Amino acid sequence: MRRRNKPGSMDKVLSYKGLAITEYKDYKGQWSKVFGNDHPIHIEIGTGKGKFITEMAEAHPDTNYIGIEYREDILISALKKADAKKLDNLRFVLLDANYIEDCFEDKELSSCYINFCDPWPKKRHYKRRLTYRGLTERYFKLMKEGSWIAFKTDNEDLFKFTLIELVETDMKVRNLTFDLHEESGYKYITTEYEEKFAGMGMPIHRVEFKIR
Amino acid sequence: MRRRNKPGSMDKVLSYKGLAITEYKDYKGQWSKVFGNDHPIHIEIGTGKGKFITEMAEAHPDTNYIGIEYREDILISALKKADAKKLDNLRFVLLDANYIEDCFEDKELSSCYINFCDPWPKKRHYKRRLTYRGLTERYFKLMKEGSWIAFKTDNEDLFKFTLIELVETDMKVRNLTFDLHEESGYKYITTEYEEKFAGMGMPIHRVEFKIR
Repeated sequence: MRRRNKPGSMDKVLSYKGLAITEYKDYKGQWSKVFGNDHPIHIEIGTGKGKFITEMAEAHPDTNYIGIEYREDILISALKKADAKKLDNLRFVLLDANYIEDCFEDKELSSCYINFCDPWPKKRHYKRRLTYRGLTERYFKLMKEGSWIAFKTDNEDLFKFTLIELVETDMKVRNLTFDLHEESGYKYITTEYEEKFAGMGMPIHRVEFKIR
Repeated sequence: MRRRNKPGSMDKVLSYKGLAITEYKDYKGQWSKVFGNDHPIHIEIGTGKGKFITEMAEAHPDTNYIGIEYREDILISALKKADAKKLDNLRFVLLDANYIEDCFEDKELSSCYINFCDPWPKKRHYKRRLTYRGLTERYFKLMKEGSWIAFKTDNEDLFKFTLIELVETDMKVRNLTFDLHEESGYKYITTEYEEKFAGMGMPIHRVEFKIR
């Protein structure tokens, strides 16, 4: 994948010392030390501009959150947002999900969120979709027994693809909905995309899954 | 459910002696005797005008088929079609699926097809949908261990409802597709509705499921 970064954006990322982590290989298996506690670690793969993970960290101080993003220029928005909040339980990693094993030890994580990831609409790019079975199986290796991945998207093709992938791998599926915001008592923290698409009346699809 | 039958249609159904069965209570647990062999019995719930089940019976002489339909006037079309073929392995039953236990003994069946059933679009009618969990769980009681229900429809709402029902009941799901006819090497026998909708370019959704 080609990174489409603006010049100077890496310097800006590095300026958020402590909050932004670029030398992630040093932290593999060491994240509890980074946070200074044994709280469960939840990650968001493709964290974008960081609204979701920042609000999650704010709402759940007893869970540690790590937002993963591979585009520096986008990560800067997330860092700005998070920096203003001064949250001890939140970090961001500049990382392409394809190299996720360089960042986490097996069973180091307790949960994983994938929100509104790139749909990669062309058939020859399916393996780049974050919910491609080859990738999700790799994420699960990094997660503790009983962990669930939560996935949401507005993209119907991507969602159908994901469901078929889940059936093929025989994962356990729960909380499947094709219209999350239609549900009464809606209580999930939203992403930037979600606010935009749901505001336009587009249905948001969501599903949780784990290895049996 | 109100039957919308034309006057005289019951007499017409009865004229197809041997092929059409209305006194189904007498046959419960006795279907092998009806067919004169121990071949597996596959049923179609809501058989409509009978194209699918008649072609299935023709293609698989070593399987016995029973088409179930609760509307007499529609069943007549199926009877006409099937009668012309003189198939030993095919019968039709005039029956509302809500009373299916009156017709079959536990574990008497080997497979079940539900094709393009009434979508019952209103929320208060969901329990009438043939893929409502309370109903599918009842069908499975009549099926041998390891049996699968195969379901296809053009109706997206009904299909999504069905998938959510399957997740809620934790059934095993396989061969999930949102566009059956798009697949290369398409080889399934079609129904009348399917020919019509697929011919109009509408995607046909299909899934198979069983109790774990």
